[in-house]
Amino acid sequence: MIISMKPHATKEQIDRVRERIEQFGYRVHSIQGDERVVIGAVGVGDVTACLEQLEAMPGVESAVRISAPYKFVSREFRQTRTRIRVNGAEIGGDEFIVIAGPCSVESEEQILRTAEAVARAGAKMLRGGAYKPRTSPYEFQGMEEAGLKLLRKAKQATGLAIVTEVMSESDVDLVAEHADILQIGARNMQNFSLLKALGRTTRPVLLKRGMSSTIRELLMSAEYIVAHGNPHVVLCERGIRTFETATRNTCDLSAVAVLNELTHLPVLVDPSHAAGRRSLVPPLARAAAAIGADGLLVEVHPAPENAISDGAQSLAIPEFERMMRDLVPYLRLWRETRAAAGDATM
Amino acid sequence: MIISMKPHATKEQIDRVRERIEQFGYRVHSIQGDERVVIGAVGVGDVTACLEQLEAMPGVESAVRISAPYKFVSREFRQTRTRIRVNGAEIGGDEFIVIAGPCSVESEEQILRTAEAVARAGAKMLRGGAYKPRTSPYEFQGMEEAGLKLLRKAKQATGLAIVTEVMSESDVDLVAEHADILQIGARNMQNFSLLKALGRTTRPVLLKRGMSSTIRELLMSAEYIVAHGNPHVVLCERGIRTFETATRNTCDLSAVAVLNELTHLPVLVDPSHAAGRRSLVPPLARAAAAIGADGLLVEVHPAPENAISDGAQSLAIPEFERMMRDLVPYLRLWRETRAAAGDATM
Amino acid sequence: MIISMKPHATKEQIDRVRERIEQFGYRVHSIQGDERVVIGAVGVGDVTACLEQLEAMPGVESAVRISAPYKFVSREFRQTRTRIRVNGAEIGGDEFIVIAGPCSVESEEQILRTAEAVARAGAKMLRGGAYKPRTSPYEFQGMEEAGLKLLRKAKQATGLAIVTEVMSESDVDLVAEHADILQIGARNMQNFSLLKALGRTTRPVLLKRGMSSTIRELLMSAEYIVAHGNPHVVLCERGIRTFETATRNTCDLSAVAVLNELTHLPVLVDPSHAAGRRSLVPPLARAAAAIGADGLLVEVHPAPENAISDGAQSLAIPEFERMMRDLVPYLRLWRETRAAAGDATM
Amino acid sequence: MIISMKPHATKEQIDRVRERIEQFGYRVHSIQGDERVVIGAVGVGDVTACLEQLEAMPGVESAVRISAPYKFVSREFRQTRTRIRVNGAEIGGDEFIVIAGPCSVESEEQILRTAEAVARAGAKMLRGGAYKPRTSPYEFQGMEEAGLKLLRKAKQATGLAIVTEVMSESDVDLVAEHADILQIGARNMQNFSLLKALGRTTRPVLLKRGMSSTIRELLMSAEYIVAHGNPHVVLCERGIRTFETATRNTCDLSAVAVLNELTHLPVLVDPSHAAGRRSLVPPLARAAAAIGADGLLVEVHPAPENAISDGAQSLAIPEFERMMRDLVPYLRLWRETRAAAGDATM
Repeated sequence: MIISMKPHATKEQIDRVRERIEQFGYRVHSIQGDERVVIGAVGVGDVTACLEQLEAMPGVESAVRISAPYKFVSREFRQTRTRIRVNGAEIGGDEFIVIAGPCSVESEEQILRTAEAVARAGAKMLRGGAYKPRTSPYEFQGMEEAGLKLLRKAKQATGLAIVTEVMSESDVDLVAEHADILQIGARNMQNFSLLKALGRTTRPVLLKRGMSSTIRELLMSAEYIVAHGNPHVVLCERGIRTFETATRNTCDLSAVAVLNELTHLPVLVDPSHAAGRRSLVPPLARAAAAIGADGLLVEVHPAPENAISDGAQSLAIPEFERMMRDLVPYLRLWRETRAAAGDATM
Repeated sequence: MIISMKPHATKEQIDRVRERIEQFGYRVHSIQGDERVVIGAVGVGDVTACLEQLEAMPGVESAVRISAPYKFVSREFRQTRTRIRVNGAEIGGDEFIVIAGPCSVESEEQILRTAEAVARAGAKMLRGGAYKPRTSPYEFQGMEEAGLKLLRKAKQATGLAIVTEVMSESDVDLVAEHADILQIGARNMQNFSLLKALGRTTRPVLLKRGMSSTIRELLMSAEYIVAHGNPHVVLCERGIRTFETATRNTCDLSAVAVLNELTHLPVLVDPSHAAGRRSLVPPLARAAAAIGADGLLVEVHPAPENAISDGAQSLAIPEFERMMRDLVPYLRLWRETRAAAGDATM
Repeated sequence: MIISMKPHATKEQIDRVRERIEQFGYRVHSIQGDERVVIGAVGVGDVTACLEQLEAMPGVESAVRISAPYKFVSREFRQTRTRIRVNGAEIGGDEFIVIAGPCSVESEEQILRTAEAVARAGAKMLRGGAYKPRTSPYEFQGMEEAGLKLLRKAKQATGLAIVTEVMSESDVDLVAEHADILQIGARNMQNFSLLKALGRTTRPVLLKRGMSSTIRELLMSAEYIVAHGNPHVVLCERGIRTFETATRNTCDLSAVAVLNELTHLPVLVDPSHAAGRRSLVPPLARAAAAIGADGLLVEVHPAPENAISDGAQSLAIPEFERMMRDLVPYLRLWRETRAAAGDATM
Repeated sequence: MIISMKPHATKEQIDRVRERIEQFGYRVHSIQGDERVVIGAVGVGDVTACLEQLEAMPGVESAVRISAPYKFVSREFRQTRTRIRVNGAEIGGDEFIVIAGPCSVESEEQILRTAEAVARAGAKMLRGGAYKPRTSPYEFQGMEEAGLKLLRKAKQATGLAIVTEVMSESDVDLVAEHADILQIGARNMQNFSLLKALGRTTRPVLLKRGMSSTIRELLMSAEYIVAHGNPHVVLCERGIRTFETATRNTCDLSAVAVLNELTHLPVLVDPSHAAGRRSLVPPLARAAAAIGADGLLVEVHPAPENAISDGAQSLAIPEFERMMRDLVPYLRLWRETRAAAGDATM
């Protein structure tokens, strides 16, 4: 920690700050500047609690942490990439993984048809919502357990692993029974009760970045899951909220490159939610591969214009097939770059 | 709904859109412009589902809703202000209500001392967190049930109603047993499972605006609670996330004036979380009263520099007393303005 | 400056950083932490240049400035409020100053009628645009010199001082001939050529905060004007750009309180541009007075529905009169609070 | 235009709106809904002025434009890509163009060495600032005319075309004499006086997106230049301001895909300013190529740790060489995709 005192802080205020730091178990180093005193705290202690108290003390101008607030998810903690192996496919490994499927599970026919089509086109996992976080209470809230069963059927038919969202602690066990990867939606990224509950499961977790969460907060939420016992976390950039309205959200692709530096966890990109418009999905998918993401989460629907939700951003099956075909040379480049980088950043 | 077709939309595309609208039970009116066709849909139907499908149809450029997506919480639904009566005090009524207390319940002495002090200074309710949503898993997570019991003790000692946060569906019953108003924190504003659970209780709910939620989304989340059975909702502006870093968040005071036009629900302001710095709390409190808020949520701690959390933004007791004294003439003006406005906006 | 080295920075990298700091004339203090070395630089030198170079050096994680980057505009430089006296009225003094008028000067009748009405209602200065910064090249660009002459006529008729925008360096002299205060619009807040040009005039400058400029950047732009020779600067908060769309911009009222702590320059609020909707102007005006602004900039038009620009946010004359009447008790409180505060923050 | 009346708008208010619309030369179509009347206006007129007036009329809830507010820069106006040919290189054509060089021109040796290195590595144009828009008046403001002359020397030595910023109308002629492409910086994107001045030159203009400007506003600013006579405009995405602080700005790469749909003008990406950190530049450069940008603007410095400005985001020459080598397979793909797309979006 570095504590800057105010220009006119008194000697007594400075002494109280020094004492407080020492009570937390740190060693103190002061620098007497021309305008102010700056104090460095070195050692091991409860940084957060200490910072909060220092910031509240008279004479203190600012108190900042120097080390990262997360540990298990950091690159320092683990130099090799985390690989999440599910049902024969591996996220974070040597292949770029495409997870595709409809926003909501709507019917047996819909989900089976989509699953078969996306599997044929090269997707390795199936996404589909059985529990839907909708802004309005009057919108379709998902097929719930019936939807989970249909996803399982689709898995049996195609071999695709299942990724689906869980919205409530009380549904965790049920969802974990049917799905291979449990998704936490953007709106629940800081639902800490849910994060803890998923920390206690053994299923991998796909954690979506909150709409206006910083990269650091995303990593802290991942740290919650890992610290509570579950190291199998996949991160997902899905667009952040900005002033721009030409796209539904602003896809923060540089976050992928930043995360590759900071964490060993795999990072996916969801171009569908980021853009909100299907024509933008293929170019964003290419860019995600180029910047070094580990894969994609893409919305596909057999008839987008009949979709109950997110139709405007869902690819029709032929569009998805075309995107997968067009991605082929980019994925060849991806594999070369990944192989050359090994566990280093791409 | 108003649907704008693309400039080169074909007749067939236009016909399919018209049919789809009619299937949803609306009447169709077309306008043939020089560049494009615009279609109006009139009547009663499932707007959201219809819009989502239309947006996904070929030839459609945009499809927008004209009526508000919420109903029970709107001014159209109810012209008179909702008054939430708790333990002798009334939010949304003829008095400006100050709810004060520490960020976290830390000890019996701390909460009792604070409760007595804020009661003496004019606060009508006591706030204090027993369950704490912390960004880091390594930070203090609250005293939980023990904290709830201390809050109850403070109520017995002072007569203040208790406002405290509930973070998990599974805690709702326990918290409702001890508290008078259940708070939903900013990070859970779109935790729809929790919103539904609170819709099934009879306790009033204090719903904080998400850090980057629009006013419309705040109202939709309130609508969730009301639509699930609980009409006793209080809204709270607590600062939104912007690019500005001089304050912890940006206090969106105009949201109070906007909400007063759109909804009959009461609106509080939390200047402590909005500003993140105690020196800004008193001026923001004055401004909140002036703009027509129904009250404040303020952090007060007997020794901010020892607070486990949020010390920098907590007022010490003498600071709170001074703020309450300085507010007196502003609250007299508030009462005059409120009395003159009646149920109209201030 | 505080420079944090990366955890694995080499001794050589650290030595090179120390040398560089010393070349800039600073004294160096190192702190050897458990994880990393932190270096403090104390003394007087070219901070900005030094920081930029340090950030680019190998082994450096971050380099941050501790002292504020502005000087003349800071509270440390001058403890007493700056008062801008123009034509008998004083901004930053003992009265809350309302500057009112239309967005654009449109005709002699329009500007004279407005000027007379706002003067009668208590405004002390007249605003009106002769040069209009419009997003589209196809929109009305202002009456230019003819508009300036009409403003002057309005001054002669009413005694109101004139505030008007200058958009181009080449217009500065002409505008300065006709106007009492030269306004820099939000879009030009970082038009440094224009800032320098206004630094060379003697007219007071009203500097509007850029739509997405931080408070620090606003102060830096003010510093430009002062450093180039003109100390007569008035700041103006006019709403910042955020994700919220219910208002045209988000009025950052807490910026007023922050600025009162950081600078001796007066601060106005423009509720019209901030809100974008006339019904929100009166509540924001009350809040601006309550939080300690020095005055308002308000759009008023004799017939808003015929206004060439900004009609939706302009008050009709009777609305302005009513707002001014309703403000009376708030301004009495304002004067009491200001008198009690003196040169300290309100 | 589509005008939604308020639910309780009176017949008289509706009639006045209809009349106003007709006065502007439009035909009127009304739709009587269950809750409200919606009015469509069809034809040709001064949309902006009409909308502004309608929004201010009693009984009007909202008035929205349906057609785009720009014309010359739109894809509808021109279906084939605009190619900007300068000194043998072509932006918007069959090659991905890299423009590289230092933030500021600092000395003859610095600019010549950089120019030779980037030319050898494959850059087609040289960037370098002679006039620098600096947040602080105390920072280096550029070498001005002497810098322009050094750029010219670098051109003579290497054959690279010169791209440099112009900040002031009064410098336009001088800069145009020395440079091949005149750059408008992000902070001047809505300096309309400067836009008009550049509309009157014949030099191509590189227009950088404002830090918090929407895509629509960027196109409107380009429209200013074109409407004033200069059709040679290149757009540049350079990162937008958001709440995220891990990067200097948030690189909005999807803006490239959106712009490719909306306009025929070429679009560059500036990963250096967007990211603010050199390690992120190569991954962003790959992503920019993949998403279909027409080229890059990259900061390169022979000794970033001695750079006067932007050292942290400047690539050293060997880093730039490596990036260019690594880009080779991505640019091969780029050419294939571009050739297949022709004038259509990539």
